[in-house]
Amino acid sequence: MVPTSKPEAEVAPRARRTRLTPEREAELYAAVLAELVESGYDALTMEAVAARARSSKATLYRQWGSKSRLVAEAMRHNRPFSLDGLDTGSLAGDIHELAGRMGRAKQDHEVFRAVAAAAHRDPELGAALQEVTIGPVMDTLREMLERAAARGEIVADAPAAAYFPHMLLGAMFGRKLFDRCEPDPEFLRRYVDDAVLPALRHRG
Amino acid sequence: MVPTSKPEAEVAPRARRTRLTPEREAELYAAVLAELVESGYDALTMEAVAARARSSKATLYRQWGSKSRLVAEAMRHNRPFSLDGLDTGSLAGDIHELAGRMGRAKQDHEVFRAVAAAAHRDPELGAALQEVTIGPVMDTLREMLERAAARGEIVADAPAAAYFPHMLLGAMFGRKLFDRCEPDPEFLRRYVDDAVLPALRHRG
Repeated sequence: MVPTSKPEAEVAPRARRTRLTPEREAELYAAVLAELVESGYDALTMEAVAARARSSKATLYRQWGSKSRLVAEAMRHNRPFSLDGLDTGSLAGDIHELAGRMGRAKQDHEVFRAVAAAAHRDPELGAALQEVTIGPVMDTLREMLERAAARGEIVADAPAAAYFPHMLLGAMFGRKLFDRCEPDPEFLRRYVDDAVLPALRHRG
Repeated sequence: MVPTSKPEAEVAPRARRTRLTPEREAELYAAVLAELVESGYDALTMEAVAARARSSKATLYRQWGSKSRLVAEAMRHNRPFSLDGLDTGSLAGDIHELAGRMGRAKQDHEVFRAVAAAAHRDPELGAALQEVTIGPVMDTLREMLERAAARGEIVADAPAAAYFPHMLLGAMFGRKLFDRCEPDPEFLRRYVDDAVLPALRHRG
């Protein structure tokens, strides 16, 4: 049903989507994410998504216009792991708690990995990744550091604070790439204690 | 021409390749790398490589057997940036020199990025990446730290030394992902001074 009570200009951008129920939309997004994890972004096809969701390529193009828009919307719809109430009382504890929540959300992790490389080339995907994952995680990391500085665990104006996200990303990606295993909690604990905290305690 | 002077057992594994001249092989490998950078690993097809190199899918399969083997061999053939004589007299200088050499080898960097995600799923690719890039870089990093410790720039048994590659990887990938720009020399200089060196100077 196309809504008619709103002014034309407001309705137009989403009007083409109004034929799908929220339930059907959710099914299609789930199919997109499953295909993404299975094939990677570059090899994902609208045909494969349509087949998995028992839909048609024509429907997908009519509703979303392009593969990158469809994937971006699927990522937005499937908000990942919660960051709420992440406050354990210590910086190391906070990082482990964050890593644990991210680690348990295994599909999100795989979606992130599948999309990260393509996001360099595609601004639409890049924006979705930023909004859904990177932005919220960056905010959480900033708050962690503020609390840690307030407790005196790290110095308040550590120059390394700007590179805190980069150091954590290196632990996640590097563990896979160099050591060919998962960044498990024990590895992260050592990495934080041996590399991250010493850097954050240095006043520059 | 199939060589006949060697014992059968030694010849067999490479015999199927002997019909291509080294020049033709080099052209095919160049086509593989160009396709890889353009399409990413997952979307790369034998058809596209064959078309670019004016060859045929049948030839590619006869010579290499599979896409992952073809890509792995193309990476091995195209040895990246040289690491020879990388010794500037300071750890920061060495890291900048390494980053500069890696940065100038722009295609290698893009090939690495195109293959890194797929290498998690494909042991053949993973082994090629390890042999061509990761292994030599890890050796170079280890030597850098040994020289830096000998000069007294860092402590000899810094617990963070084990995470030196991870921290540098975080700078390269994180700069793109979080800050959406290239890890230029100025960024790397600050990252090394503010995050990496303080960690490496900490005795644990």
